[in-house]
Amino acid sequence: MARDKVCVVIGAGDATGGAIARRFSREGYTAVVTRRTIDKLKHLVAEIAQEGGKVHPFGSDARDEEQVAKLFREITTSRVYRKVWEMTAFAGFLTAREAAKVMVPRGQGTMLFTGATASLRGGRGFSAFAGGKHAVRALAQSMARELAPQNIHVAHVVIDGAIDTEWIKANFPERYNAGPDAILNPDDIAEVYWQLHRQKRSAWTFEMDLRPWKETW
Amino acid sequence: MARDKVCVVIGAGDATGGAIARRFSREGYTAVVTRRTIDKLKHLVAEIAQEGGKVHPFGSDARDEEQVAKLFREITTSRVYRKVWEMTAFAGFLTAREAAKVMVPRGQGTMLFTGATASLRGGRGFSAFAGGKHAVRALAQSMARELAPQNIHVAHVVIDGAIDTEWIKANFPERYNAGPDAILNPDDIAEVYWQLHRQKRSAWTFEMDLRPWKETW
Amino acid sequence: MARDKVCVVIGAGDATGGAIARRFSREGYTAVVTRRTIDKLKHLVAEIAQEGGKVHPFGSDARDEEQVAKLFREITTSRVYRKVWEMTAFAGFLTAREAAKVMVPRGQGTMLFTGATASLRGGRGFSAFAGGKHAVRALAQSMARELAPQNIHVAHVVIDGAIDTEWIKANFPERYNAGPDAILNPDDIAEVYWQLHRQKRSAWTFEMDLRPWKETW
Amino acid sequence: MARDKVCVVIGAGDATGGAIARRFSREGYTAVVTRRTIDKLKHLVAEIAQEGGKVHPFGSDARDEEQVAKLFREITTSRVYRKVWEMTAFAGFLTAREAAKVMVPRGQGTMLFTGATASLRGGRGFSAFAGGKHAVRALAQSMARELAPQNIHVAHVVIDGAIDTEWIKANFPERYNAGPDAILNPDDIAEVYWQLHRQKRSAWTFEMDLRPWKETW
Repeated sequence: MARDKVCVVIGAGDATGGAIARRFSREGYTAVVTRRTIDKLKHLVAEIAQEGGKVHPFGSDARDEEQVAKLFREITTSRVYRKVWEMTAFAGFLTAREAAKVMVPRGQGTMLFTGATASLRGGRGFSAFAGGKHAVRALAQSMARELAPQNIHVAHVVIDGAIDTEWIKANFPERYNAGPDAILNPDDIAEVYWQLHRQKRSAWTFEMDLRPWKETW
Repeated sequence: MARDKVCVVIGAGDATGGAIARRFSREGYTAVVTRRTIDKLKHLVAEIAQEGGKVHPFGSDARDEEQVAKLFREITTSRVYRKVWEMTAFAGFLTAREAAKVMVPRGQGTMLFTGATASLRGGRGFSAFAGGKHAVRALAQSMARELAPQNIHVAHVVIDGAIDTEWIKANFPERYNAGPDAILNPDDIAEVYWQLHRQKRSAWTFEMDLRPWKETW
Repeated sequence: MARDKVCVVIGAGDATGGAIARRFSREGYTAVVTRRTIDKLKHLVAEIAQEGGKVHPFGSDARDEEQVAKLFREITTSRVYRKVWEMTAFAGFLTAREAAKVMVPRGQGTMLFTGATASLRGGRGFSAFAGGKHAVRALAQSMARELAPQNIHVAHVVIDGAIDTEWIKANFPERYNAGPDAILNPDDIAEVYWQLHRQKRSAWTFEMDLRPWKETW
Repeated sequence: MARDKVCVVIGAGDATGGAIARRFSREGYTAVVTRRTIDKLKHLVAEIAQEGGKVHPFGSDARDEEQVAKLFREITTSRVYRKVWEMTAFAGFLTAREAAKVMVPRGQGTMLFTGATASLRGGRGFSAFAGGKHAVRALAQSMARELAPQNIHVAHVVIDGAIDTEWIKANFPERYNAGPDAILNPDDIAEVYWQLHRQKRSAWTFEMDLRPWKETW
């Protein structure tokens, strides 16, 4: 039944997470969206409701990405190193474990993890962030191997490039205005998440990358 | 215009290649399908025509996969090593170069390469096949970097598992009958190729894997 | 001067760590060896002293590998997930940071991280251990990029196979007795660590793997 | 017996190959060195003889690296694509197969393949060279898996950076003079090859990278 169809987005910000929630909502899914500050979800909730979708906002202690972005550039203290791990790997672990508890008895479900370039590469000054993202990827890989035979699809999407957000617009104007489609459009990412969710189990993807056409890699 | 929409499938056998041609054909694309022996394309051509699609069959010297499959298991002589490379990397190079010649002046196009587990791993007894497949992946990666800024999307799909074909049915019956969706369904693969082709250029995938839910990896 | 030559081994157990300390000690280095329980270092200290080497034992809260080994196989609770991360990534981070504080002002030094198969692969049931090991590898990679231009060599050794220890002997007798050199000899590993330390900076290794000749991979 | 100890270097140019031959020769090995033009081996032969070593020069059709370097930068025609593959993968295959024929009956031996950044990455304009190098790596990996249990050690060294040669000196003077040890010293590479050859079989390396301390990666 339709009420069984729920899409939970941890960290449903103004960009990727929000777009994913809207995309699934348009297909009849109830969107459960979380953000540290529930007030910041108002706009998204209104948008989904206006399109006729069902949405339930929750405040949760998963911290938003901007904070992480600020943190991992700083000279890394042990407090920061731990905090970044908690925001990335530990938050991912807790969420995934709870999701698995619901999905395994049902014998179905999809879990999609969002990775970054740092999931695969430990760059200069990125030891904390890359450590957390590497750990998330290991978690996703372990869970994919454990849960696939139970009909639960776990995938990891490596997003390699800047995403179209207010923050990028404000802080990297030259990049933001580098030409058409030069940065990742959240709706285009959301479409890929939707397709992953719809993949038939004879042919499931564990990992794929996404980057803008003009991105150098 | 519609007549511009052409999908060329090199090696359109009874499984993946044929399914991809049918999938694109159903979206209004004219399917150009090649196989070493043009006679073997009769069935596919009839199927597409019956569904109302347009299709043009060609005989070409790209050899079929079964031959490769037979070859790479044998004690590898230098003749075989060269032949496997010609069937995989060199055939891929020639095709991709010709495709690029058409796509670059048009300023658009999609090239999808089909990889295998051997694209990433040189297993025992697989030096020739893995060498060819590694080279194809290098080619795809180089071309993706060269052509993406010219609006041409190049991607590489790593197919990790047995595909539902007559050959698998006949030779690996226990695997073929291992339960629902235990081997890759060509139509499910074709759907993914279609989605890759439709990706928006703000978020292009270079590489993704596909395997059945019960596959061990 | 000779008294500047110090080799610090975090987790100097009876196998690899101990062998590394002995190897460096034979070249005139003072071995500083740590283990959670200082008493367990008695044997190693006596051995090095007997060979005429200098050694300083310390108790430290880096937990021994056996504990980790036991933990990561269990159904992973959040407490265990966190603990495994602390024993692997966080302990590695703290140690490396302190080492960097000493090495950077001196303008020289070598840091060698010991990885495992789980550094590169998230296997079934290994989400916690693989997460920690992936994070250590990201840390090592970031630090290698940061510190190499300051004349500090950071490397990561992926050990793929069972190491010759009492624990393997007791718990995996068939593996232990699988024939000559079928499991990793700590002295042979130690030799490689010594060679890494002696590499000339025109040709530094970041990563290398080690496995027994009969190991399947 | 000493006369059994032979080190064959395919492509013993003035830099890495020559240094490897000298290094093994100093340990009592007879150096068998090949180059397309036997005359160009004169200097190396004299050097080894002067140090009291035994050396046998041979002309062979393995083309020198400079030619490859020139080729892979050009607009790649099918003739060039094939030629680069012949110089890299096919030459590697033929040599390795012949070496295996000698080593397998003896039950011992070491084969060391020299890789490059292009072994792991298909960069822009490098489709031919990266294809060949990827194929060599696949070959080395397959052979390592096949031959290790027969006591033959196969390894692959990824050299990431410019090597100290006359050609680099003449064509990239700013890089050549970038400071002490900023480019790879052939003798330092040779030492690593010697160490790989001497590794005990309880702990064999398949792959390792080498780059100068100031190299960006």
